[in-house]
Amino acid sequence: MLQVALIGYGYWGPNIGRNFNELEGARVAAVADLSEERRAAARRKLPGARVLESAEEAIRDPEIDAVAVCTPLSSHYELARMALEAGKHVLVEKPMTASSAEAQALVELAERAGRVLMVDHTFCYHGAVRCIKKIIDRGDLGRIYYFDSVRINLGAFQADTNVIWDLAPHDLSIMDYLLGAEPVAAAAHGVSHFGDRENVAYLYLEFKDKLIGHVHVNWLAPVKVRQTIIGGEKRMIIYDDLAYEDKVRVYDKGVSVESREDVYKTLIKYRTGDMWAPQYEQQEALAVECRHFLECIRTGSRPLTDGRAGLRVVKILEAAARSMAEGGRMVKL
Amino acid sequence: MLQVALIGYGYWGPNIGRNFNELEGARVAAVADLSEERRAAARRKLPGARVLESAEEAIRDPEIDAVAVCTPLSSHYELARMALEAGKHVLVEKPMTASSAEAQALVELAERAGRVLMVDHTFCYHGAVRCIKKIIDRGDLGRIYYFDSVRINLGAFQADTNVIWDLAPHDLSIMDYLLGAEPVAAAAHGVSHFGDRENVAYLYLEFKDKLIGHVHVNWLAPVKVRQTIIGGEKRMIIYDDLAYEDKVRVYDKGVSVESREDVYKTLIKYRTGDMWAPQYEQQEALAVECRHFLECIRTGSRPLTDGRAGLRVVKILEAAARSMAEGGRMVKL
Amino acid sequence: MLQVALIGYGYWGPNIGRNFNELEGARVAAVADLSEERRAAARRKLPGARVLESAEEAIRDPEIDAVAVCTPLSSHYELARMALEAGKHVLVEKPMTASSAEAQALVELAERAGRVLMVDHTFCYHGAVRCIKKIIDRGDLGRIYYFDSVRINLGAFQADTNVIWDLAPHDLSIMDYLLGAEPVAAAAHGVSHFGDRENVAYLYLEFKDKLIGHVHVNWLAPVKVRQTIIGGEKRMIIYDDLAYEDKVRVYDKGVSVESREDVYKTLIKYRTGDMWAPQYEQQEALAVECRHFLECIRTGSRPLTDGRAGLRVVKILEAAARSMAEGGRMVKL
Amino acid sequence: MLQVALIGYGYWGPNIGRNFNELEGARVAAVADLSEERRAAARRKLPGARVLESAEEAIRDPEIDAVAVCTPLSSHYELARMALEAGKHVLVEKPMTASSAEAQALVELAERAGRVLMVDHTFCYHGAVRCIKKIIDRGDLGRIYYFDSVRINLGAFQADTNVIWDLAPHDLSIMDYLLGAEPVAAAAHGVSHFGDRENVAYLYLEFKDKLIGHVHVNWLAPVKVRQTIIGGEKRMIIYDDLAYEDKVRVYDKGVSVESREDVYKTLIKYRTGDMWAPQYEQQEALAVECRHFLECIRTGSRPLTDGRAGLRVVKILEAAARSMAEGGRMVKL
Repeated sequence: MLQVALIGYGYWGPNIGRNFNELEGARVAAVADLSEERRAAARRKLPGARVLESAEEAIRDPEIDAVAVCTPLSSHYELARMALEAGKHVLVEKPMTASSAEAQALVELAERAGRVLMVDHTFCYHGAVRCIKKIIDRGDLGRIYYFDSVRINLGAFQADTNVIWDLAPHDLSIMDYLLGAEPVAAAAHGVSHFGDRENVAYLYLEFKDKLIGHVHVNWLAPVKVRQTIIGGEKRMIIYDDLAYEDKVRVYDKGVSVESREDVYKTLIKYRTGDMWAPQYEQQEALAVECRHFLECIRTGSRPLTDGRAGLRVVKILEAAARSMAEGGRMVKL
Repeated sequence: MLQVALIGYGYWGPNIGRNFNELEGARVAAVADLSEERRAAARRKLPGARVLESAEEAIRDPEIDAVAVCTPLSSHYELARMALEAGKHVLVEKPMTASSAEAQALVELAERAGRVLMVDHTFCYHGAVRCIKKIIDRGDLGRIYYFDSVRINLGAFQADTNVIWDLAPHDLSIMDYLLGAEPVAAAAHGVSHFGDRENVAYLYLEFKDKLIGHVHVNWLAPVKVRQTIIGGEKRMIIYDDLAYEDKVRVYDKGVSVESREDVYKTLIKYRTGDMWAPQYEQQEALAVECRHFLECIRTGSRPLTDGRAGLRVVKILEAAARSMAEGGRMVKL
Repeated sequence: MLQVALIGYGYWGPNIGRNFNELEGARVAAVADLSEERRAAARRKLPGARVLESAEEAIRDPEIDAVAVCTPLSSHYELARMALEAGKHVLVEKPMTASSAEAQALVELAERAGRVLMVDHTFCYHGAVRCIKKIIDRGDLGRIYYFDSVRINLGAFQADTNVIWDLAPHDLSIMDYLLGAEPVAAAAHGVSHFGDRENVAYLYLEFKDKLIGHVHVNWLAPVKVRQTIIGGEKRMIIYDDLAYEDKVRVYDKGVSVESREDVYKTLIKYRTGDMWAPQYEQQEALAVECRHFLECIRTGSRPLTDGRAGLRVVKILEAAARSMAEGGRMVKL
Repeated sequence: MLQVALIGYGYWGPNIGRNFNELEGARVAAVADLSEERRAAARRKLPGARVLESAEEAIRDPEIDAVAVCTPLSSHYELARMALEAGKHVLVEKPMTASSAEAQALVELAERAGRVLMVDHTFCYHGAVRCIKKIIDRGDLGRIYYFDSVRINLGAFQADTNVIWDLAPHDLSIMDYLLGAEPVAAAAHGVSHFGDRENVAYLYLEFKDKLIGHVHVNWLAPVKVRQTIIGGEKRMIIYDDLAYEDKVRVYDKGVSVESREDVYKTLIKYRTGDMWAPQYEQQEALAVECRHFLECIRTGSRPLTDGRAGLRVVKILEAAARSMAEGGRMVKL
């Protein structure tokens, strides 16, 4: 029975806690939070767990095997480092750290310590995203041309981060998982209408071979949109996470090009075939993720969203921040 | 009875021709096209018009009062110049010219000649866009924060232009009309997956006072989208041109900020009220536009979409092209 | 060159006229309408046709080969009879006649005269409906359980008919074509909120073997809906005629039943598989229909929507009228 | 502190239990269920409650103040009767009883006993439905013409009931609440494709003054639909319970009639104005309902969905069953 310590019991921590408790083979043995109000909530919801003020006390408890870090971004690195140094396995909320140097340090530390380091890129465990991954991996899309993602809604403005660090990790982790490729350059534009944190932003990414990515994130939109379009040579996919049914739609549409030397020009031909919405497993993504964490600990295997995946996403966020600070300059990665 | 010469009878010319002919007070008296096939089509559809190969002959015909230029972009300037010099009123398809220098020259020529120069920014005559204009002008949105427009579909790839010059003039002319403000800088990113013309592109625009614009245009998308979001201080609008009904939706949603010095921080409050879809007149935009052209000629008034509006849009397109050529650099306007 | 006489130039006649004129092998040679205003419109739009006040004169003209009857329902029978007796081929707007006796008489007359009698069940020539027909005919749906159709909108109230006779012929002709079966009983309920013509109505149809049909028609609805659901043993189809794309969606969903005697009860199992939206030809249905009419005349073959199809639909409408008059009583067919 | 006994811990009981426990002023003190598996679930989720096999033991417990009956329909009457006779307040799941005689008996018993009898018509406590009620009550719709409701999905087939008794109580309780009127006649048609319980059904209701109702319920539909249209003289409402946002839309559309004697006919004029989606409170309906139950007990006031409301719905269900058994005959109420 894996004994898990939960550090942070705010917005996301209770979901992590509930999922570990519903798993066979794991239980939340300790919860730490600085707020008395949140500790009281933890006592009500997790009656079997020790509830503490000190994260350190929870982390260093010898009965604890694994630590889930669900605190604000600024403390991710310190808490994860402490846990790894104490020989614990670690699950960290996204984004993994506030800088790529910190992410790199955690990756190395976990490897030296022989412990599992996993980042909570929840969408990579969502049935819809896994279904898209299968479709891409078996070549149905052919060469991929672009990945375009829109994640907009009203709120929730956050004091200690901007809209890119808040929302884009979802899109970037999905992109990282689906494309299996790293961008070579990033440019970002954004504006902060209130205070000094950007609340609308656009992120452009260049990969090799004319593959591009684009992410539009916005805290000030009248409606909620979560939509990703993946354009491929043979087919294209639209993933609409808010669709009531048929979130993933595959379009057998595309363009073919004939270069005919005799006419000295390029002929573009369109192909519009059927649309197809595949069925996929309807499990809660976080449940799949927690089970995967357990499995990786038991078998010693590398998580799908390991520290390196966390690092790759943080590197893009960091480049986006630099680009925004420098007027949208294209930043090499 | 205004005698109109139509130069170019390809995709859009027949629509312009039909609309002038259905107006009281105007008729298409001449059509010129280089293609025999298109001339044959003109003879069938416009039995009352002289059908010519030579544009010059049609333009210089003393019976002709006004010239509508519906040819490919590269010839807009020469044909419009010739018509203005011949003392005709001119309606030019969008984008008005291939460079801002040409656009500037036409504007000056029209003013010297005392002739009406109008650019075919059709959407500015659409009931939905006019309805949004009224809402903005009476202050319902308050200060405007952003204008975000998406115009994507499959095709139609064009040999002599890229996706920005092809599709973005729609968004930019709507933006110019609605905001009544000119951007101060532009940055664009795009990629050409086939040949050397960009087929996916993103255009970011900076105005004064933290107002921003963004346009996503794409010839390689699996579905057609024409959607514009305008975010304001008091309300926000979504304009979905493909919605079957209720294309314009006004959201009484927003954010208010309280700066309280005693707590040294900014408090963001959300406001989510009703949504409202105003009714508006359902006339064909091109019919409204052609009637407006006639009216301006008769009264000597300046068109809503005059040469200066055409020039403003061309300047942005030109800046976008320069930015794309220089790796997405922010270009001052 | 087939010489067509068009009787009636109101709402639908101009569409029929335009389509015959755009066909190789046919031309509208004569138009008859009682209204001077509509005759003036015919002269403008069909410059090559003789325009007459007298339908009889147009029908009896020896140069005329075929007659298209596009008048109000009450005159369909007389005009079609006159045309068949004059040896002409006949295309009649839907519903074919105001009674099944009239429809039966026309069918017999056409057979005796050896002339083509076709009813304008336009939707049977629509790419979406033909695509569904193919899917059903190759057995993809298995046994069909129900056909449910909704056709509602605001207006257009008509003085001489009710909402069932106005709108339901569309649904009933689609149903007749797709199912290839005739109902054995009908019951209808409706209400007339203004005057004495029902403006909201519901029609229930029983076929053999537990197949049922239902049609909801409404002139007083706030939005326009045209949606048909066909539930089958193996798959189900939704046909949404107002969808911008993917009007036909096939759902691989269903129920399977296991009767297990040992547990003395029926076990229902659900199956939810993929959704699939087939591509189909995007031609104007009326163009396909007019071409088919020509083809049938040339080859002597029986039209897809022949007089018998018209008769079958009129029989259902008649039964519905009787049922409504008798408080919704189930009327045998 | 109100002590609640929960009878039945299957699908809906746990929701009722959770909501009572989250209320100040109430707690679930006892749970009874015949199944050991469900009792085990109750022990896990409601650690403070006595968990029993015998409903009678729970009901007769003198510490218990109120009983919530969440068992299959067939036992509602007996359990509610026993509870009322024991002097308890009672909340019964919908439909209230299997016959109107039983419902009538419970109403009378509750009145004699001076106890609160409430039926769980959950939707009447939903923010969207309450918002519609306000709009209707202040006269925005004018005279109401029709109430049309569609509630279809795949499954869940039930062994002991048909689709009307399973799904239509939702629509009928909403209708009863919103219209404040009782139908005078009902006719229903349905078919049972598997076994002997109808799985697709249509219910037509006549009220006074040409008001009608219609409910389409279906267990065998490929998609889930929950949509109600209410057509009024001045405005119309669409309530789409599955819409992600803006579930309630009010259309300023309608028809006006001018009877002009001089022209001996009725002129229908259409009016199409704005659409408006009002905001409303976003509380869980069941929480509002449980709080209302408590409030009624405390103040002795009559619940919104009292026994008479339950009786009215059961009378319609009963009439529908009779009509279906008699081939769709119109049954007086």
